[in-house]
Amino acid sequence: MAAQPAPASQAALRQHNLSRVLHAVVEAGPLSRADVATRLGLTRAAVSTLVEALLRAGLLVEHGLGRSGSVGRPGTQLLPSDRGPCGVGAEIGVDHLAVCVMDLRGQVRARISHESRNQGVAPETVLARLGGMLRRATGQAAAVGLRPAGLTVAVPGLVVRDTATVLRAPNLGWRDVDLVGVLPEEFGPLTVENEANLGALGELWSGRPSPAPSSFVHVSAEIGIGAAVVVDGELLRGAHGFAGELGHMPVRPEGRPCSCGGRGCLETYAGAEAVLRAAGLEPGPGVRLGALTAHCEAGEPVALRAVRQAGTALGIALSGAVNLLDPGEVVVGGALARLGPWLLPPVRRELARRTTAAAGGRATPVPVTASPLGPDGPLLGAARHAIRATLDAPNAS
Amino acid sequence: MAAQPAPASQAALRQHNLSRVLHAVVEAGPLSRADVATRLGLTRAAVSTLVEALLRAGLLVEHGLGRSGSVGRPGTQLLPSDRGPCGVGAEIGVDHLAVCVMDLRGQVRARISHESRNQGVAPETVLARLGGMLRRATGQAAAVGLRPAGLTVAVPGLVVRDTATVLRAPNLGWRDVDLVGVLPEEFGPLTVENEANLGALGELWSGRPSPAPSSFVHVSAEIGIGAAVVVDGELLRGAHGFAGELGHMPVRPEGRPCSCGGRGCLETYAGAEAVLRAAGLEPGPGVRLGALTAHCEAGEPVALRAVRQAGTALGIALSGAVNLLDPGEVVVGGALARLGPWLLPPVRRELARRTTAAAGGRATPVPVTASPLGPDGPLLGAARHAIRATLDAPNAS
Repeated sequence: MAAQPAPASQAALRQHNLSRVLHAVVEAGPLSRADVATRLGLTRAAVSTLVEALLRAGLLVEHGLGRSGSVGRPGTQLLPSDRGPCGVGAEIGVDHLAVCVMDLRGQVRARISHESRNQGVAPETVLARLGGMLRRATGQAAAVGLRPAGLTVAVPGLVVRDTATVLRAPNLGWRDVDLVGVLPEEFGPLTVENEANLGALGELWSGRPSPAPSSFVHVSAEIGIGAAVVVDGELLRGAHGFAGELGHMPVRPEGRPCSCGGRGCLETYAGAEAVLRAAGLEPGPGVRLGALTAHCEAGEPVALRAVRQAGTALGIALSGAVNLLDPGEVVVGGALARLGPWLLPPVRRELARRTTAAAGGRATPVPVTASPLGPDGPLLGAARHAIRATLDAPNAS
Repeated sequence: MAAQPAPASQAALRQHNLSRVLHAVVEAGPLSRADVATRLGLTRAAVSTLVEALLRAGLLVEHGLGRSGSVGRPGTQLLPSDRGPCGVGAEIGVDHLAVCVMDLRGQVRARISHESRNQGVAPETVLARLGGMLRRATGQAAAVGLRPAGLTVAVPGLVVRDTATVLRAPNLGWRDVDLVGVLPEEFGPLTVENEANLGALGELWSGRPSPAPSSFVHVSAEIGIGAAVVVDGELLRGAHGFAGELGHMPVRPEGRPCSCGGRGCLETYAGAEAVLRAAGLEPGPGVRLGALTAHCEAGEPVALRAVRQAGTALGIALSGAVNLLDPGEVVVGGALARLGPWLLPPVRRELARRTTAAAGGRATPVPVTASPLGPDGPLLGAARHAIRATLDAPNAS
């Protein structure tokens, strides 16, 4: 699960420490050289050498009294550069396409999104449209001195681990679609990842004041149910890359038939389509979970009951997940986040009933929170993912 | 999840490489120095220096033409020492106590087990008895030149992460029992760990010819249901150390009330007590799951039906776990392993029905195997755990 293998040679050790310095400044900057040394347990001399290399490579900049190339006066603060390498994120949704460009400071510097009915459309057509959006967004970014260091694409489907192949995205109608060679190649290394996984990474890296704990379960729903598990700061991928299929956890084993061939899966009770139908709405383009929020705010009994029942089913499935994983938090993201006021009470009730005694009678059940990122999570997570390769292996000599 | 933090200094780098050499010889020995260099991607000169330190420390021995202190002729093979540091494992069961001593080669060199009715007995009494057994076993080991490098104790309950405190072991009647200072302290660092977790580690380290994949779910049952999750070779601990509570996954959400306060937990259908009762047997000392094997072998319909029903419930819960974790294998251990011929077919049927399509229609469901270690898993895993600290941080200067 470790992001980086332990270095076993001098060169690897230096690269490892360059990465640690860059990570420290990105995550906690502005920092002085002395701050960095204290944080990392390195000598100030070692930190100075590493920082000079990162300044020369244009990955860090100085702010305050000192100047690049000086030995670094006490008042000099280090910041990630707002020029140079940037991460490019893209999202292929059922009803939309979106791209964004993020700099090393985590700031979104360009963003384009379009409604796009992608369901049942040939993958090449969708990807050609996305390619055009990527060229426009990175063009805007180039004008402010940013160059793409990687592209990460969020898709609503299963991606084969360590490949760019979408094995199955039923809501798009995709099967065995390899994105290599189909998208433009000028944006750096391509990663394709399940949207729920990237939503969870977006949460992990959101820099919110009280950061998410390093181990949590993230659940979202656009059409089906998407979930992701983060353990000690790393995404749990699974042996084939398919971990996080909370939507097919059996909540009523002999209940409703599910499209997966099983019965009583969570998705048949709490997936967006199921909830919309239970609320008397016909799901389709423009009628997604977001539409339900207004009905709940208006206090419509049918909508409220539908969301409550979904919350109960979600709470049962999450009870299984919490008993199995013992996460530090459950984060509800995507469109589900907006239904929080009505959805979360029954979720919390089931968790309190089914997990606290099992966990040795600890006083409080696992915290359940609504993500502040909401539907932006996967796109922001994708861009952040794309830039992380630079942080993990900075190109500085 | 990484076993070892990445080294950031020269001394840490050397220690890291000493550990890598020792691990390589323990896991794949006998090996020549050249074999070690090839495996680890280190120079032969570097390996020679590291090997000399490990020979001096008595952690490795040479076999074949060469002799310690020579530069290592080509025919010389390295083996872990069968003297020096050893791991001490102990198991506190409901009806028994067991201890064993394992050398660096993974061989059990001393083993003592006793029937012992521990349920409802004061923890000090149980631990005093265990302490006596530990002294006898390590005394036997000392006679062949082995000295304890650590003690790991398996308990049927929840252990607070990174402590030696048993928060709750309902089948023993224990609550908040701290083992520090109660057990003799001469065996080296003490670790207390849930028996299911150690059973999983035993499986991981069993050295069986076709090794377990590095990511798997391990499930066992003595009285309740114990489970453990191994991801990329490391135990998934959870935020509080409580991960693996598969027994309280809801399989029939409004079904039988469970001792945990929930309803329809797996344990109420597939825990040893539930299965024994369904088979018309009264659980108690001497009447555990093992007793059921004979009834199944004799083809008794009531016993067969009870085991089949338990298998179905287990398959439903495991479907949830497999969809969430995407493990490479499900290993059924402990007393459940012996019921494999009758228990596993319904488990596999539920998994095939509920997980394959959810996982993108991959052709074959997750393999489900019965552990070859059976009830010995937790004890062997404990001893192996106790010696692992030596492998990870060898004391060699």
